[in-house]
Amino acid sequence: MSRLLYLQSGGPTAVLNTSAQGVIETARAHGVAVCAAADGLAGLLAGRLLDCDALPAAAIARLGLLPGAAFGSSRQMLPPQAEAPQQWQQLAALLQRFDICQILLNGGNGSMETALLLQQLGEQFGLPLTVVGIPKTIDNDLEGTDFSPGFPSAAKYLASSLREVLLDMRSMAQGRVFILETMGRHVGWLAAAGSLAALPDEAPPLLLLPEVAYDEARLFAAVRCQIDAQGYCAIVVSEGLRSADGRFVAQMHADRVYGHEQLGGAGVWLAQRIQHGLQLHAHVAVADCLQRAARHLLSAVDARLAYQVGRMAVEWALAGQGGVMAGLQRIATPHGCDWQVVPQPLAAVANLERALPAAFIAADGLDVTPACRAYLQPLLLGEVALPFVAGLPDMQPLQFPPLPG
Amino acid sequence: MSRLLYLQSGGPTAVLNTSAQGVIETARAHGVAVCAAADGLAGLLAGRLLDCDALPAAAIARLGLLPGAAFGSSRQMLPPQAEAPQQWQQLAALLQRFDICQILLNGGNGSMETALLLQQLGEQFGLPLTVVGIPKTIDNDLEGTDFSPGFPSAAKYLASSLREVLLDMRSMAQGRVFILETMGRHVGWLAAAGSLAALPDEAPPLLLLPEVAYDEARLFAAVRCQIDAQGYCAIVVSEGLRSADGRFVAQMHADRVYGHEQLGGAGVWLAQRIQHGLQLHAHVAVADCLQRAARHLLSAVDARLAYQVGRMAVEWALAGQGGVMAGLQRIATPHGCDWQVVPQPLAAVANLERALPAAFIAADGLDVTPACRAYLQPLLLGEVALPFVAGLPDMQPLQFPPLPG
Repeated sequence: MSRLLYLQSGGPTAVLNTSAQGVIETARAHGVAVCAAADGLAGLLAGRLLDCDALPAAAIARLGLLPGAAFGSSRQMLPPQAEAPQQWQQLAALLQRFDICQILLNGGNGSMETALLLQQLGEQFGLPLTVVGIPKTIDNDLEGTDFSPGFPSAAKYLASSLREVLLDMRSMAQGRVFILETMGRHVGWLAAAGSLAALPDEAPPLLLLPEVAYDEARLFAAVRCQIDAQGYCAIVVSEGLRSADGRFVAQMHADRVYGHEQLGGAGVWLAQRIQHGLQLHAHVAVADCLQRAARHLLSAVDARLAYQVGRMAVEWALAGQGGVMAGLQRIATPHGCDWQVVPQPLAAVANLERALPAAFIAADGLDVTPACRAYLQPLLLGEVALPFVAGLPDMQPLQFPPLPG
Repeated sequence: MSRLLYLQSGGPTAVLNTSAQGVIETARAHGVAVCAAADGLAGLLAGRLLDCDALPAAAIARLGLLPGAAFGSSRQMLPPQAEAPQQWQQLAALLQRFDICQILLNGGNGSMETALLLQQLGEQFGLPLTVVGIPKTIDNDLEGTDFSPGFPSAAKYLASSLREVLLDMRSMAQGRVFILETMGRHVGWLAAAGSLAALPDEAPPLLLLPEVAYDEARLFAAVRCQIDAQGYCAIVVSEGLRSADGRFVAQMHADRVYGHEQLGGAGVWLAQRIQHGLQLHAHVAVADCLQRAARHLLSAVDARLAYQVGRMAVEWALAGQGGVMAGLQRIATPHGCDWQVVPQPLAAVANLERALPAAFIAADGLDVTPACRAYLQPLLLGEVALPFVAGLPDMQPLQFPPLPG
């Protein structure tokens, strides 16, 4: 009996396991056995496989409710054959041994390169192997898809949290500055989501995007303007904000303190610049992993499409349509928009990085355009109830046993 | 017609406006007119009063859904009469002019001192004035009450968010450290809430409380132990963590960078210590205002009791029972516990600060005791649905007009 292999790769999202649920339930409906690599490609290369079929349907339905990567994930990528011929041979033998005929790789742009290599590996060794990529990243930087599952929920979490804080800010609006640091080393999609937080009667949060070099004079003028007009000012800063010379501002900060590189301090760095330059005290919140794990504040659109890309990837893999990623295409509907899942060649996606397009960045570099807001807004629609037990999210992890044999 | 005056004071919470709702709806049921000070005591001293009766019942019901302080808040306190005789006289004249016979002050331990002084002001000037305090603070440091409304929701937010991140941590558990910085300059109640996040099969998060001097050797040993046992380690650190000499660690950090004081960096400081001492990379999340504004993740117990303390404060004020705060007393029930609202003399509450008792801190100083968890757990019970519009929390602020006259 042949098997379908599922892998999770890279940083988790709030809906990564929802895609896994879509994969497993669809394969089961087709009567196909499913296994998963423990800890993604790292586990696969070590021959560590888990048996997805050991758990009942109710457990798989619960899988979709869990943040994180239920099978474990890693950032390991497959090296090209020329660099690791023995690894390719061992992997081919493993796939043959477990009669694995489909591989579904759930990850970001680096993982799509690995998916492409796995497809080549199958051809190289004459295996009946079909490889399909399933998109996933809160960064939203994948090409070939209108959005990456995981991003809408992170965006909803950030915009909702910021909206709540804006009401807090109003309450004591005497020269208060609030800084929210988001993830996003190279692209500003997550920070852009902050633009949705403002209420109609207030100034939009100032956005500091990795796509726009930090311009302190311009920022300070805008902060002053908002403080004068409404008494408070919110700033959303990407962890990957850079100065005009291309260096991460957070890294400059670390250099100054300890003389070595460490990212993740753009918010604190900025608060200190503002304290010194404007004599304004700034509060700093750093969302870090909270924004990608916030299962309690999910976008229903995200959850639905995360499931769908998993489902369609299985359909295509079983039909022998490999070398593609399950991309999302936005289509207009009478009352807004919807998405259909369409195959995108892996080669057109792998290792590319989609930044915010110029048309989405406002002229002053501190906001996004109405076109960007129109893109973002439908992604946040709908809520998904999360079960709570004893006042806390019901999140008992699932334990999948090793694949026998 | 006499009036009841309501004031909000200090930092907002997720349920401060729920207490306001309780106050206004109860006063209306008694046919008593209600006004509020704009921006707390600062606005009162400037004669800025808002008319709570200008808005319909539906608006007041919506008030309870908003984070922040809907009438504005301030940290200003009333000075004793000896220090500001003219201010006292002006205030007495204002109260007489608007026929204010009850004052309800919704705040923390400093505000209860102001409530006490307001009661004295009434006696001093022969006004028919009854002053009642309504507890509020996410810090949970008020004496005379089992908990302070606002704390349970912040605790639920922190514990839920950390539980979600723990699932993320498990997914890539290769020597990962996650640090969550909570509010709490002097007391560790918020950080203690992190202890509820762990699932039964995992090590409890390590807690760094302001009540326990930072002991690096002990912390590093515990981190190493958790990393060895389960591959990851979560640390919850109060912003007010201190070294053995009593200095804030965050302040030491700031001194080192810029030679001046600024709190709010305990998490980043700790990450750098761990990077250098253990060669482990640590993620840092700083909840900051998110934890006190997170209306989307409310404790139903908190919301219910926040309303009740507002309601009972009005009942007592109208009955002439002043000089008290509406405290919460925990009572055993057949299936757990509940709370009743009891009057506590303001003098027994004002300016006191309730730290975590010794019996709530584990012997190693890095955890809380089962008794503490038993105290915390019932506070988190129950969820409250928040209306969303277009994918974001429905949070249009209310505008109360100035009180005529």
